[in-house]
Formats: sequence, structure tokens, C-alpha cells
Amino acid sequence: MPEITTLKGMHDFLPTDMYVRRYFIDKIRNVFEKYGYEPLETPALEYYEVLSAKYGEEERLIYRFQDYGGREVGLRFDLTVPLARVLASHNELPLPFRRYQIQPVWRAEKPQKGRFREFYQCDVDLVGIKSMAADAEIIAIIYDTLKALGFDKFTIRINNRKILQTIAERLNLPADKYLPFFRAIDKLDKKGWPGVVDELMRLGLTDSCIEELKGVLKLRDVPTKIMSTLRRVLGDIEGLSEMESLFQYLDAYEIPTEYTVFDVALARGLDYYTGPIHETTVDVPKIGSITGGGRYDRLLEIFTGKPIPAVGTTLGLERIIIVMKETGMIPASAIPTRILMTIFDTTTYKKTVELAQRLRAIGVNVALYPEFVKLSKQLKYADKANIPWVIVMGPDELAEGTFLLRDMKSGNQYKIKLTDYHKVKEYIDGVLG
Amino acid sequence: MPEITTLKGMHDFLPTDMYVRRYFIDKIRNVFEKYGYEPLETPALEYYEVLSAKYGEEERLIYRFQDYGGREVGLRFDLTVPLARVLASHNELPLPFRRYQIQPVWRAEKPQKGRFREFYQCDVDLVGIKSMAADAEIIAIIYDTLKALGFDKFTIRINNRKILQTIAERLNLPADKYLPFFRAIDKLDKKGWPGVVDELMRLGLTDSCIEELKGVLKLRDVPTKIMSTLRRVLGDIEGLSEMESLFQYLDAYEIPTEYTVFDVALARGLDYYTGPIHETTVDVPKIGSITGGGRYDRLLEIFTGKPIPAVGTTLGLERIIIVMKETGMIPASAIPTRILMTIFDTTTYKKTVELAQRLRAIGVNVALYPEFVKLSKQLKYADKANIPWVIVMGPDELAEGTFLLRDMKSGNQYKIKLTDYHKVKEYIDGVLG
Repeated sequence: MPEITTLKGMHDFLPTDMYVRRYFIDKIRNVFEKYGYEPLETPALEYYEVLSAKYGEEERLIYRFQDYGGREVGLRFDLTVPLARVLASHNELPLPFRRYQIQPVWRAEKPQKGRFREFYQCDVDLVGIKSMAADAEIIAIIYDTLKALGFDKFTIRINNRKILQTIAERLNLPADKYLPFFRAIDKLDKKGWPGVVDELMRLGLTDSCIEELKGVLKLRDVPTKIMSTLRRVLGDIEGLSEMESLFQYLDAYEIPTEYTVFDVALARGLDYYTGPIHETTVDVPKIGSITGGGRYDRLLEIFTGKPIPAVGTTLGLERIIIVMKETGMIPASAIPTRILMTIFDTTTYKKTVELAQRLRAIGVNVALYPEFVKLSKQLKYADKANIPWVIVMGPDELAEGTFLLRDMKSGNQYKIKLTDYHKVKEYIDGVLG
Repeated sequence: MPEITTLKGMHDFLPTDMYVRRYFIDKIRNVFEKYGYEPLETPALEYYEVLSAKYGEEERLIYRFQDYGGREVGLRFDLTVPLARVLASHNELPLPFRRYQIQPVWRAEKPQKGRFREFYQCDVDLVGIKSMAADAEIIAIIYDTLKALGFDKFTIRINNRKILQTIAERLNLPADKYLPFFRAIDKLDKKGWPGVVDELMRLGLTDSCIEELKGVLKLRDVPTKIMSTLRRVLGDIEGLSEMESLFQYLDAYEIPTEYTVFDVALARGLDYYTGPIHETTVDVPKIGSITGGGRYDRLLEIFTGKPIPAVGTTLGLERIIIVMKETGMIPASAIPTRILMTIFDTTTYKKTVELAQRLRAIGVNVALYPEFVKLSKQLKYADKANIPWVIVMGPDELAEGTFLLRDMKSGNQYKIKLTDYHKVKEYIDGVLG
């Protein structure tokens, strides 16, 4: 056995990690369902042809192989393609279809901080609606989700691919350069202007064009403030009418103005967006965007054969959890309290199990030490395993119908009558003690 | 796009399926955690060498391929190998280690009813304990879990590989025939004696040996009743002492006698069991075993390099859900009630969103119809999407500060004051109406 380890870029989630993830997932699921979104899960493996129908360049990221039946298959690398495939496979799904999906995806790319080869995505999508009311709802959900998780400072940047496309047209870029143009702009955050200028020049833009572009792309403000400026610069274009409509719809959700910004420099790298796009960033710590998405009115047709508009967002679970950990946003209560029930010998075993069963019945998590070893060894284990409470019931306690509850941190010990076993719950909940 | 479908043996889980699965997972997780078991998740992909370290024959079931880095990798096909790998990778885990793991596994085998190529396993394992108290706890957990799910009639069959091994020795079978012998016996349930006799003869057993074997293997009864018979037939062997001890420990959990049976014909197909084994069957519907497991004291050493005893069980999520569906054990309340908030026009939109937001804040799931279409179309959608309640708030209602709540099934309609919006919760919970 040369390698007894996980593959690079893939991780075990030990219990403490799992509790954090569950806390996170319970919170976001709750928000999604409040808005009427319903859960969906799809297989990890799909026909490679299905996975590759959407993308060009990103195909190299797909874990791909031939199965024993000679079929070309691959591991899903996002949750949007599976959604599209589901819509094609299940004609019975009524539109509008609101679904959320929280599952791992796999990408054969170089691991970095917050970027893994196996990671969970959380997607929320509203399928079948052209109205900008749908886009507004998705943005409201992002706001509510981050608030529910305890985020205080974040910015949802919003733009529209149609605006960027108009800009590309005005710059006389040929249509096949639009996507490279968007991707160049998308790197502004990471590379800054010097890095992006190189790429823009390679696309054939002149110095004066780039200067003009800078002037437009630096526009970034509260929607109401920016709209008239943009109308003056760009004229009465579809992208702006859409944005006006989106912000009007969004207005009903009464999100404080500091949380959303109209940012003309937001581009997003994916090729399939057709309208409004958005991305959420936090200032501290510096980790890039934690959610991203937009409208994609043409993608689903590739799979379903009929035009179906859609808008959605992805929450970066792994990144958000990194942020929440680094900023202490995970409450201690996310980890369920356990009690170690120590064990004395065969004469007390039956009574010990009985007490454990009674406590379990009232909702207390009890781990029984399952072997007759010295009490000191059992206490040492509770310590190592971070079990905060211990119950001791030897022959002496049993004779007087009591047991001892010990707080491992403080060392405090409480003698409780067997018939008062429900008091354990009050001690561990901090009501007594 | 020739194939827009899932791969054979793999399934989408649409919202209604997902609610059933969540109901199931919440229930069993709750029982596992009451016993102090903690959640674990591991990557879908592992080094192929890790996956194949345990098995011989079953390797063909593994989805296996070479990744872009030239590494031989495979999709996990069970949760026991990942557990072993985790113990090898994380020396910091204190023993005893109680973990449960609920994740999909993949097997490249022929799909049948209740047997898929991608399916969830739920494993509960107690690692690091030799005492039969651990085996008893696992059986108590199976009992509690099935009871919590609403199962009324089931049988946990218990046996010990050491007993079967003694029988094999007495039959003068060579050691390399033990596993084929166990596997032949394992088929008794499916094939009956005629089918099994053929296999036993191929193993070299004579007719008289097989007759004698039949006499022993038919022993199947309440533990206390069977023990003395077995002592008489087999003598004072280790397998029996273990069973005596196990049943004594189990006694403390006060499981009614009809739920457990000592069944000498239980064998289990896997090669790694070293002590007590168990399997749970339900009579109706006929679907084979719904849980299975046992003690495996030598497996972990292959991965960790040191002997670590362990015992555990697997719950067959997919099969149990099939049984629960077929016998109507899934309560309607497993599906969260949603309300469709219909929408009139731009003049009422803001007030409509406000009402939706208020309802969400008090825990009501509200799906807003996100486009201005005829009310009849919106109601038709509620019907198709199985949304049981609808809210209508047109200009007339708005003018008098009310809205209408309609029960889609009964057609009953309630007029509610906007300020009394919390009453919606009482109507959909059945308190009012």
C-alpha cells in the first residue's frame, strides 16, 4: 500500500468540519425553501456528450473516462448542465421551475486556496421566466442567504452582458471577440488595468479606445445614481432598460443600498450569460467572489430543444465556509453536545445502558464507553475526543440511586438522582449548574 | 445531442423524492447522533490501490480510470474502505471512534430492482473496541433506527462467522474453501436448499455431510432457546461464547424478543467479517435484507498497519425507501407546504412582495409567480406544481387592506386582513379553516 491518502485537491470532512457544513447547508436550504425553491439531486456521472454540450474551452476540466459498457462518461463539473439535462429528461416538470441543488462537483484543475478538485456547489435557479422580477428574486435570495449566515458586510455587484456587448460593438470588435473581451474585463479585479490592457491590445483595441473604455468601466455606484450617466454615455439600449426594470423589482425587497452596486466592469467568465449578471464579494478576508450567476436564456435550448429562459446563482460553499471560519462566524452550538457515559463493570452495565437510553429518549446525545477499562482511561478519552460532559455511575452511586455528571472543562461535578435524569438536559443546556 | 438522459442504473431525485430522502436521513441521523456517532464525508474518488486493497473478486465492480496526472483512480464502491483510509490518514482521531457516513457509492454492475449503479449507503461503525458490547450497541441502533422510521415488523438475524468457521472445520473443508462455503450458505434465502446443495457438492461435501449441515443450519430461534442446543451440537467454542456475551449485553437494551433471532444459517457474502454478523429482513414487501453488517477485526490493519477492531452496519437507503413508499410509511408532512403568491400587475407588485417577505419571515414557504400573466394561468400552475395554497391580492383587495388565501384542494377561500398575515400560518397548519 504505497499511498494511503486522499487524492490531491480532495478532502475528508471529519466530524467538526461536517457540523460546520451542516450548519451552513441548513441555513441556506431554509432560505431557498422560504422562496419556494425545491431540492434536486442528480447522478455524479453523466454521458460525456451531455457534459460537453455546453462548453468549449472548459472540457479539459472534466474527469472523463470510458465505462465497462464502452460509454464515454464524465463526472459533473457544475450543476447547471445537470439542471438542463433534468429539464430535458423530465417533461412533466411545470414551469416556472424553482430548484436548488447542493452537491459536489469535480474539476481536474490545479488546486489552490479555496479551489479544490472536489467541492460542493450550491445552485439556486428559477427556470422559465423572462421577467426581470426573476433576476431580482435571485438577488434578494443572495442577500437573505448571506444575512442568514451572519454576513454583515458584502457587496452584490450587478451588471448586464447586453451592456458589455453594446460596448464591444461600439469598439468595433468582431462578434467572435466578444467572449475574449468579456473574459479580459473579468480579470480586472485580479490583475488590475495593466494586466487587462495587454489582453485588450491583443484583441486589437487601440490606446484611445482603451482609454475610453476605462472611463465607462470605472462606473460603479448605487443604481439610481449611475443610471442617468449610463443613459447619456450609452444611449437608450436594451441592457439599460433591463437593468432599470431589475432595480425597480429589486426595490420591493428593501435591501439597504450599501449591499448592491451597479458595476459596469463586472463581466463573469462563462460564455452562456445573456442578460443581467452578478457577483458577491466580501472585503475581509480577500478571497474573490463568494457567489456568482446571472441570466442564461439560450443555454437550456441546447438540451431541451425549445427556448427556456432561466436565471440563477451559485454559492461557493467552500469559500464561504473559509470566510466564516476565519471570521469566527460559526457558532459553538453548531456542534451538538455529547455526553460520555462511562462504564464500571458487568454489575452496573445494565443500569448504565438504561440511563443512557432514557437520556437519548429525551434528546440527549450519549456515547457509551463500550469496554470495561479504568475510569481514568475513559476520562482521558472524553478529553481527547472533545466530549464536554461525562457521567459516572459506579456501585456506590448505584446503591444510593444517583449518578455523577461532570463538566470536563470546569471540573464541576453534580450528583443527580436517577429519577431526576431529565436534569442532565438542563445542566448541559446551561439552565442549571 | 443523441442521449439526453441519465446513465442506466443512475437516477435523478426530483423534489418529491428529495423530501422523502431528507425525511429518512433526518430520522436516522438523529438516532445515530443520540448514540454519540458523528458524521464523516470522504471524496468520491480515491487512489485505485486504496479501493482495491480490501477485495479480490469485487474489483470488477469499481468504476476505474486514469486521471490527467496519470494516477489510477476509482469511484468509491462502499463506505468501509474510505473509513479505513480515513483512520490511516488521520492519526489524531481518538479511539473508540464512532462515525456514520451517508454518501453515494458507485458500482459498475447490472441494475435490478432496488440495485443501482449509483446509490446511497448509510454506514454506522464503532471502531477500536473488542468487547461484544460494541456489537450489541450496533444492533440496538438498528432496532432504534427502524422503529424511528416507523417499521413495525422486522427481524434482525444474528450469527457469528466463527461458528460457521468451526462448522467448516468440522466438515474438513480446507481453509481456502471457507469463504466459498460462507457464500454458498449466504444464498440459502434466495435459492433454497436445492440450489445451495449443488454448490456445497462442488466444494467437495458428501451427501451425509450436507444432511448433517442442514440439521445445524436450520437452527434459528430466540437466542436463549437456541444456545443450549448449539452448545450440545458444537461444544464450547469461541463463536458461541461471543454470542452468549453479545446477547447478554443486548439484553440491557430491552428489545422485544420478536425482533432478534439467532440464525445459524446467516453467512453474509463479504470476506472480511471475523465475528458476529447480522442482517435485517422485512416480510412485506419481499426485497431482501435492508441492513447488514458485522464485526471486522482484521480489515483496518491492512490500511493502518496496526490491529484495530471494529463493528458496523450498513443501512440500505434505497431499499428502505422503496419499502417505506410501498407500505405508505412516508408521512405527508415530509413535504413542506408551499404557497403560491399570485401577482397582478406593477401597481400591486411591491405590496405583494412585501406580504411574501413577511410570510417568509414567520417561516412560511412562499413561491412568488414571477411574471405578469393571467390569474387563471397562475392558478393552473399551482395545480400542476402541486402547490396546495394560493394567495390572491388584486387592486380590490389591496384597496381594502386584505388578501385572499385559497385552499386549492377544497376550493375554500379565506379573506384575511393584511395586518393579520400571521393567520396564514394557522390556516395552512390546519389550526384555522
